[in-house]
Amino acid sequence: MINERMRALGAARSEIRELFEYAKARKAEIGEENVFDFSLGNPSVPCPDEVGASMTALLTECDSIDLHGYTSAQGDATVRAAIANHIKRTHGFDVSGDNLYMTVGAAAALTCSLTALVCPGEEVILLAPYFPEYRVFAERCGGVVREVKCTPDSFLPDISAIEAAINEKTAAIIVNSPNNPTGAVYSEEILSALSKVLKKSEEKYSRSIYLLADEPYRELVYDGVDVPYIPKLYHNTVVCYSYSKSLSIPGERIGYCLVSPRAKNAVDIYYAICGAGRALGFVCAPSLLQKILPSCIGKNSDIRVYDQNRQLLLTNLQEYGYEIVYPQGAFYLFVKAPGGDARVFSEMAKRHELMLVPSDSFGYRGYVRISYCVKTEQIKRALPAFRNLALEAGLIKR
Amino acid sequence: MINERMRALGAARSEIRELFEYAKARKAEIGEENVFDFSLGNPSVPCPDEVGASMTALLTECDSIDLHGYTSAQGDATVRAAIANHIKRTHGFDVSGDNLYMTVGAAAALTCSLTALVCPGEEVILLAPYFPEYRVFAERCGGVVREVKCTPDSFLPDISAIEAAINEKTAAIIVNSPNNPTGAVYSEEILSALSKVLKKSEEKYSRSIYLLADEPYRELVYDGVDVPYIPKLYHNTVVCYSYSKSLSIPGERIGYCLVSPRAKNAVDIYYAICGAGRALGFVCAPSLLQKILPSCIGKNSDIRVYDQNRQLLLTNLQEYGYEIVYPQGAFYLFVKAPGGDARVFSEMAKRHELMLVPSDSFGYRGYVRISYCVKTEQIKRALPAFRNLALEAGLIKR
Repeated sequence: MINERMRALGAARSEIRELFEYAKARKAEIGEENVFDFSLGNPSVPCPDEVGASMTALLTECDSIDLHGYTSAQGDATVRAAIANHIKRTHGFDVSGDNLYMTVGAAAALTCSLTALVCPGEEVILLAPYFPEYRVFAERCGGVVREVKCTPDSFLPDISAIEAAINEKTAAIIVNSPNNPTGAVYSEEILSALSKVLKKSEEKYSRSIYLLADEPYRELVYDGVDVPYIPKLYHNTVVCYSYSKSLSIPGERIGYCLVSPRAKNAVDIYYAICGAGRALGFVCAPSLLQKILPSCIGKNSDIRVYDQNRQLLLTNLQEYGYEIVYPQGAFYLFVKAPGGDARVFSEMAKRHELMLVPSDSFGYRGYVRISYCVKTEQIKRALPAFRNLALEAGLIKR
Repeated sequence: MINERMRALGAARSEIRELFEYAKARKAEIGEENVFDFSLGNPSVPCPDEVGASMTALLTECDSIDLHGYTSAQGDATVRAAIANHIKRTHGFDVSGDNLYMTVGAAAALTCSLTALVCPGEEVILLAPYFPEYRVFAERCGGVVREVKCTPDSFLPDISAIEAAINEKTAAIIVNSPNNPTGAVYSEEILSALSKVLKKSEEKYSRSIYLLADEPYRELVYDGVDVPYIPKLYHNTVVCYSYSKSLSIPGERIGYCLVSPRAKNAVDIYYAICGAGRALGFVCAPSLLQKILPSCIGKNSDIRVYDQNRQLLLTNLQEYGYEIVYPQGAFYLFVKAPGGDARVFSEMAKRHELMLVPSDSFGYRGYVRISYCVKTEQIKRALPAFRNLALEAGLIKR
């Protein structure tokens, strides 16, 4: 009598969560230091001091009725103006607070955007491998997922494959750069090529095709690589942003949708996102979390630990014979599963107490994802296990 | 090309919000003290000291990675255990943390429950007058709303009308006591009668009918009236609770779903709610807000001001000839519109600078709602305007 689709979604843990729970149980059995959990994308560096300082200041200085009261549904106007200014300063892209809709994190930004922009039966393009929840979000609002595989080895959008996948039902494409799970960062060149194909397709099918730019990892990049600002390259863009990773506050759920002012019917898109937020039950993003943002925007967590972890893993794993997609962003390594079956390899890794997520639920086979948002110490202790796994998998000889 | 239903929802402000915005503009014109805004249900008493104290303590004492990190999707286990204990102590009803799913407020609790329990095309019974967003929530997940009018004058559930409205497609009924907009509190007698009819109908149609108890106003009651605990009276109950009103923190968005352990297939219902939360993009309820609850549950805001406001309005408005539903809970008065047309009367009130919400969008005609969660001072200043309005409406003679 209940909604069976929802029951199944709730009963089936994601493959990521499943592995995390196994690691927890295993730690209780053989000791925390002997289990090497690389399953979850949970930030492992503290939030910048400004987060706590700003909360304390607000709690001390503000009237509690104002501080904890409802903000307007789209978010506090002062907060939205501060974010708009930061976008202008950082990206040289002119937006106002009226283009911003505050959300409880990037997941909510995506569900609000998809609910607003996708009509039942329309298609949503996902670039495989992709964050598994994209499929859940798109299907919940009646969308049909069309997977397009990224180019092998470099894991960049395959522009001609995307063009071939677009049809008269294509409503949206989700672009996630820096990417989960590959760590790839898309260049301006590739994004311009994507923009060109999307515009051409809009004309061909006389319809709008929305690019949803899921950007929780925007600030987590290495080697000084540039993350192009997609609204400058493609008009019909909605940026889905979260402070979860940049401020290391993933449990607090704060982010936004930015409807590009260059989008066709930008005001109607914005209204539709407001309507979706209302219908999904969001009311407003958490008030205190909104109000710390003017003091915290741009004060990012110190990501040097992630970079150190990345290099430590890259150097050693390559030495052990693993094939790795070279990652310039986020905090994931995407590693080829020797033998080709990711689930078999993940099980083999478990016997070495290494928790590596098989890529299958990301819509792609034959890889495992390593989340390196962990203490560097854990990586150092895990290296012998990675070596033994390489030996067992036949990547190197004893 | 966008979802037109969502655009319309976002573009059309609710009648409540429309009036609030008019009041704001009017205040700028003629001075704050000359406009009497009774439109919004925004708590006007401060939160208990424990809220700020507990936040400050957590910020000082906890590791920021733990404090602001993801909790499990259903909420922190310690927090859920504390709430379960409070329910046991307060209502003598045995639940565990595993029956609780933390949400970003009661609205999210309702959208998660409806998404979990209503299949497209099934019916949801709303007892008119009702909070207008119920319709938005029910229709968004494909439900069909069936309105059943409350009894005239007392505004209690009309049990035989409910029985007549139930059919083989009835999936759920939303019960809201203390009630928005009438302030009515349903007695154990009436709720038992409702339970009896629901059970009988479940047998008749061989299906489950879920009672969603929307209880943000549970602690806001006067005259020492009792608010029966519905899970004790009806098995298939999901309580949708929010701390917005009891702790005066409506902007912070924290609440829960309680799936009664007595519900048929309680575990499947719980899974379906988890699945709905996942598909709607909630991830987890805000972490800091969850973690203050063990120190704050039961430490409610001081509602004596609301009671004082209630009595001041009741006494005077009745003297001026207004007919009022006697309210024992929440912070609303439901007043009969002289002449019978609520919108006409609301416009007349606006000319006296009184902002009274017409009942039409609550699925009921001929009344206005007065939100008395305001400073008592505002009520005192508004009394002459209420008197002049009564004169103009012919309720009293000069």
